[in-house]
Amino acid sequence: MEIERTLHMVGGDGNDSYATNSRLSMKAIMETKPVLCKAIEGGFASLSSPAPAKIVIADLGCSSGPNTLLVVSGVIGMISTSGYSEKTELQFFLNDLPGNDFNYVFRSLQQLKQQLADRKEGLLEPPYYIAGLPGSFYTRLFPCQSVHLFHSSYALMWRSKVPEELSSGVHLNKGNIYIGKATPSHVVKLFQKKFKEDFSLFLTLRQEELVSGGRMVLTFLGRKSSQMLAHGDVGTMWELLAQALQILVQKGRVKEEDLTTFNLPFYAPSVDEVTELIEESGLFDVEHTGVFESSWDPHDDSKSNGDVVADCARSADSIRAVIKPLITDHFGESIVDELFQVYVPIVAKHLEKGRAMYPVIVVSLKGRL
Amino acid sequence: MEIERTLHMVGGDGNDSYATNSRLSMKAIMETKPVLCKAIEGGFASLSSPAPAKIVIADLGCSSGPNTLLVVSGVIGMISTSGYSEKTELQFFLNDLPGNDFNYVFRSLQQLKQQLADRKEGLLEPPYYIAGLPGSFYTRLFPCQSVHLFHSSYALMWRSKVPEELSSGVHLNKGNIYIGKATPSHVVKLFQKKFKEDFSLFLTLRQEELVSGGRMVLTFLGRKSSQMLAHGDVGTMWELLAQALQILVQKGRVKEEDLTTFNLPFYAPSVDEVTELIEESGLFDVEHTGVFESSWDPHDDSKSNGDVVADCARSADSIRAVIKPLITDHFGESIVDELFQVYVPIVAKHLEKGRAMYPVIVVSLKGRL
Repeated sequence: MEIERTLHMVGGDGNDSYATNSRLSMKAIMETKPVLCKAIEGGFASLSSPAPAKIVIADLGCSSGPNTLLVVSGVIGMISTSGYSEKTELQFFLNDLPGNDFNYVFRSLQQLKQQLADRKEGLLEPPYYIAGLPGSFYTRLFPCQSVHLFHSSYALMWRSKVPEELSSGVHLNKGNIYIGKATPSHVVKLFQKKFKEDFSLFLTLRQEELVSGGRMVLTFLGRKSSQMLAHGDVGTMWELLAQALQILVQKGRVKEEDLTTFNLPFYAPSVDEVTELIEESGLFDVEHTGVFESSWDPHDDSKSNGDVVADCARSADSIRAVIKPLITDHFGESIVDELFQVYVPIVAKHLEKGRAMYPVIVVSLKGRL
Repeated sequence: MEIERTLHMVGGDGNDSYATNSRLSMKAIMETKPVLCKAIEGGFASLSSPAPAKIVIADLGCSSGPNTLLVVSGVIGMISTSGYSEKTELQFFLNDLPGNDFNYVFRSLQQLKQQLADRKEGLLEPPYYIAGLPGSFYTRLFPCQSVHLFHSSYALMWRSKVPEELSSGVHLNKGNIYIGKATPSHVVKLFQKKFKEDFSLFLTLRQEELVSGGRMVLTFLGRKSSQMLAHGDVGTMWELLAQALQILVQKGRVKEEDLTTFNLPFYAPSVDEVTELIEESGLFDVEHTGVFESSWDPHDDSKSNGDVVADCARSADSIRAVIKPLITDHFGESIVDELFQVYVPIVAKHLEKGRAMYPVIVVSLKGRL
């Protein structure tokens, strides 16, 4: 599996696209707004005087959909109210893997212009320029010391690749596709090790790219406790998807060996795992850490009609918009519809036990001088 | 007609895509190489000492296809041999209108990496980073004084819009879609005026974005003499396309009023017109001007099988890959195939008179301090 090619949200704006099914990550962006706002204010205070002529902001793992523009317009708004110099210009880089639907993002930029023009506050926005930057954030993306603010939402739980020992079949994950109840402990350690390698690399690369005193606000799926399995966590979501795949194996629609060799390039760390790695690196000061919980159902905040099936279908759609390209690459396009038909009742049965939530970690970091 | 949405080469890599039919502009890039090389050498000589940590290069109107990467790999090669500082990093911005197929470009970047790795010279390339930048080059695209080298090939003959008096129908162009033999002189002046406005604006915007001593190499379709019509020039190509559209009007396949209100956002200037505007602006020193001729047939340099029909079809395919989105937007998708079927024999008849060439202008400019 070539992650750089296959890991991307479903493009365009159709029913199964990420653009249409990204309400959960939108809610996370809203939740993180105060932290981001504080990072921007702090960043301004520590930037060298006179104010820089250009502030560079990078959104890592921007995906394609309304959220991409939400981050940009949010940051423009925050900087507008943060007392910027009149001569300061903003340069945004929207980053994602080359398989991301950048065409969709670029064609939406006109809407952003309109949104900003429609704002009631009558604020004068600084001039801004928006570029797309294809590439993995586990590689260098920017020249040295050229970025003032990194933002990343709902992206850092994705790994650079599936642990080699799993993708090569040296170790097997017993019908799971991520860490599940039946996952052997040495396989758990492989997922964990890959996370440590990736996250340490990420910190090193970003520190090289960040200007002195620059800020980094990261939001990603995680675990509340150091326990590897906890009810309602995101691991359960994948465990239920593995169950759906097992049913397709039983039906003869998926080869057993195909399921055996499929694992997600994913790891949801605990807050402790994250802060330990940051401290070990010695590259950043932690200005904020937090965890909030998000419902599986993207419309959980709106009035429920008590239609459990509709709730489950929406949860399944959110997951499909994220995972479909990986499923298609490994199992072929033909099983996708059937897989998600099987998945919905499994999710429904799980939700009978109660509202399912998953934890989201937010950290705000300041580059050490 | 919204130029920002409709003016773009045909995307993807299918038979009718620009990627497959862009051999002519590839040849222009090869022809321009020595001028670009000299601009880079001159640019290095005039850049402040010590060498900048980052060199920013922008390709304006990059389109989507192999040429986009050809420019990038060419510039990386030239900088590698131009004695750069070991600490210098390159940041490329590939610019085109938001309708351009950036997804295609981004997914091809892996090939560029491979091409550079395969180079025999064993040169150590400086680190490079590539971003896509959607937007019209008749607007500001970059923060002030942030670009070291602008390059633009086969893009500046496109106007920001069709002259208002033509698109609103106040003045009519007698069955033409560009300046043809039957075009009234006041309509010629409208095309000319729009060019002057656009090109002057372009020069002003780029001067604001260019660092002190920065360079700009521009290649675009033009005329050899100040005479408005000259055999073999690019105007004839559009005049023949207008003839094909007239035949479709006669057949009842296209409404006459649709043809009457269709004009190209295009102007091929003479060298004198270009240099006069540059001198008037007072913003740049002209380091080089040149004109070379390019054949209509993209395979004119390869051995001909004497197959005139194949030659004409190739010429027509090149034009189709460029103009199809504008045709589709105005006349609808349904006439495109028929239009180009009618166009091929018209081109063939024209080519019976002899090999048809069109002039290409190259200018190399240095920003005044």
